[in-house]
Amino acid sequence: MNTAIAHTNIALIKYWGKQDEQLRLPLMSSLSMTLDAFYTDTSIEFADEDKFYLNGTLQTDASAQRVFTYIHKLQALLNLRPESVVIKSVNHVPTAAGLASSSSAFAALAGAFNRLYKLDLNHKQLSILARIGSGSASRSIFGGFSIWKKGVTSDDSFAYPIDENPTMDLHLLAIELDTKPKSLSSTEGMKLAKTSPFFNHWLEANDSELDAMISAINNNDFTALGELAEYNANEMHAINLSAKPGFTYFVPETLKAIELIHTLRKNGIECYYTIDAGPNVKVLCQLKNVKDIQKYFVSEFNNVKIVSASFGPGISYLD
Amino acid sequence: MNTAIAHTNIALIKYWGKQDEQLRLPLMSSLSMTLDAFYTDTSIEFADEDKFYLNGTLQTDASAQRVFTYIHKLQALLNLRPESVVIKSVNHVPTAAGLASSSSAFAALAGAFNRLYKLDLNHKQLSILARIGSGSASRSIFGGFSIWKKGVTSDDSFAYPIDENPTMDLHLLAIELDTKPKSLSSTEGMKLAKTSPFFNHWLEANDSELDAMISAINNNDFTALGELAEYNANEMHAINLSAKPGFTYFVPETLKAIELIHTLRKNGIECYYTIDAGPNVKVLCQLKNVKDIQKYFVSEFNNVKIVSASFGPGISYLD
Repeated sequence: MNTAIAHTNIALIKYWGKQDEQLRLPLMSSLSMTLDAFYTDTSIEFADEDKFYLNGTLQTDASAQRVFTYIHKLQALLNLRPESVVIKSVNHVPTAAGLASSSSAFAALAGAFNRLYKLDLNHKQLSILARIGSGSASRSIFGGFSIWKKGVTSDDSFAYPIDENPTMDLHLLAIELDTKPKSLSSTEGMKLAKTSPFFNHWLEANDSELDAMISAINNNDFTALGELAEYNANEMHAINLSAKPGFTYFVPETLKAIELIHTLRKNGIECYYTIDAGPNVKVLCQLKNVKDIQKYFVSEFNNVKIVSASFGPGISYLD
Repeated sequence: MNTAIAHTNIALIKYWGKQDEQLRLPLMSSLSMTLDAFYTDTSIEFADEDKFYLNGTLQTDASAQRVFTYIHKLQALLNLRPESVVIKSVNHVPTAAGLASSSSAFAALAGAFNRLYKLDLNHKQLSILARIGSGSASRSIFGGFSIWKKGVTSDDSFAYPIDENPTMDLHLLAIELDTKPKSLSSTEGMKLAKTSPFFNHWLEANDSELDAMISAINNNDFTALGELAEYNANEMHAINLSAKPGFTYFVPETLKAIELIHTLRKNGIECYYTIDAGPNVKVLCQLKNVKDIQKYFVSEFNNVKIVSASFGPGISYLD
């Protein structure tokens, strides 16, 4: 078996719009933190028939279709034998709840595919392959902080690490408020977002927001990083609310979580939120406050699940 | 006693930003519906000492200060005797909960002031006086639908009616989810909103949105009116979310109400929302659906108060 392990990542500067649907070329550059607590391991081998097992269960739905569409696309792109494969993935990420399981899933799948065909791809090439499966997967090839520069062609749109072993005291609490599958997929949400009259103006700010985030990282400035990450997420959700028609991934508990984060911050427990295409909230904080923040969320929410994460590694292989 | 009665109004195209704080000159034109169900009656007479009674209780807080600052400003502007006055207002509107009590309050106060000094102002002049007290009050001088054009000077920024006796089948349900005073005043919210990078782009769309709303009214097109009102409210709240720092007037129940409105619409009960600087939601609908919508809100929310309203009249006097 050819097995790869990739960790999920959370964007601090969001990817939220495609210039090319097929190639998943983005309209903006994004910046993320790879997480240690959430990952996918994926094995692949040649077989008589295409089969995809997720967490031990054979999949026959849209997720299997997406996986094999991806595999066939890679085989065509790289002029490889179009053989059938069996894929076995174990997803250590709650799926489809805004925790970006597709980032680790397609990064691991790209890695396993690389091994299967003995392609010996470098990380840049792997990042491009992963991107074709799921945009955010391009960043999960690397650990620590990485940037996915938008590029203008497929060969030019890939992630690269800016700090694979960060020393910043930065922790992420994934607050699972609601793990129901999201009502609107990221793909559909991104399409709709482009109808916002503010969308293009948001794009214009992409370079300066990226530069400001890189400075925060270089200066080891948690406050600047947190404020900008929260601000960038607010912009993304403002874009959604002002789309035609407006929509939101927020549910009532999302707002309650935002209120709690504001209250904690007012009371000297420094923390910030980021929110992706789903109802859940991720809290950015420093180690000294992790336990307190967990405590407050547990006391405010019924049945909340909280996973604490910090920096995760880039892609690796089981030999 | 010199007594005037004015009804509150709900903006379908929002006023959300000032070009001049002192004169309350707006950055955009707005369009509203005056409501029959919410109003203020205000009496004024000369006295030995300034006193302001609201709903029978002597006020000594910021609201009294705002009222007398306004009265003194009018006396100075119009070169009138700076005499003391006693003002008695009865506010048939839940205050400070996004139901724009200040629109009826300052319209009625402007009207009573007009009578006190026997100024014999026309409605345009009254609208200007009311505006100086509270921007949205400029529109409460008129019944039905009215427009407050932004203007460039104080004499040039006033409301006018576009249809004082509309035949459109249009009802508004004021859903009182939460009548706590809002955490951020409209004045402060408007200041902060201007820091959104999208604010100026929103302003650029003001003329075309206003034209589209006038067309919907002229064509008696409830669907077009509802969609545009909801869209314009979404834009305003997207502006707030993308301000620096981002903020929102939404509370968890606000999102729950929005979800309910989407569900009702999907199920063939046509309704739209508009939301001002507070947590409450106003539902726009037609008469045939009023009872059903009330029923669904009552079953989904504890202790919800719902007031049904339709078109209200312009300012009037008790002689």
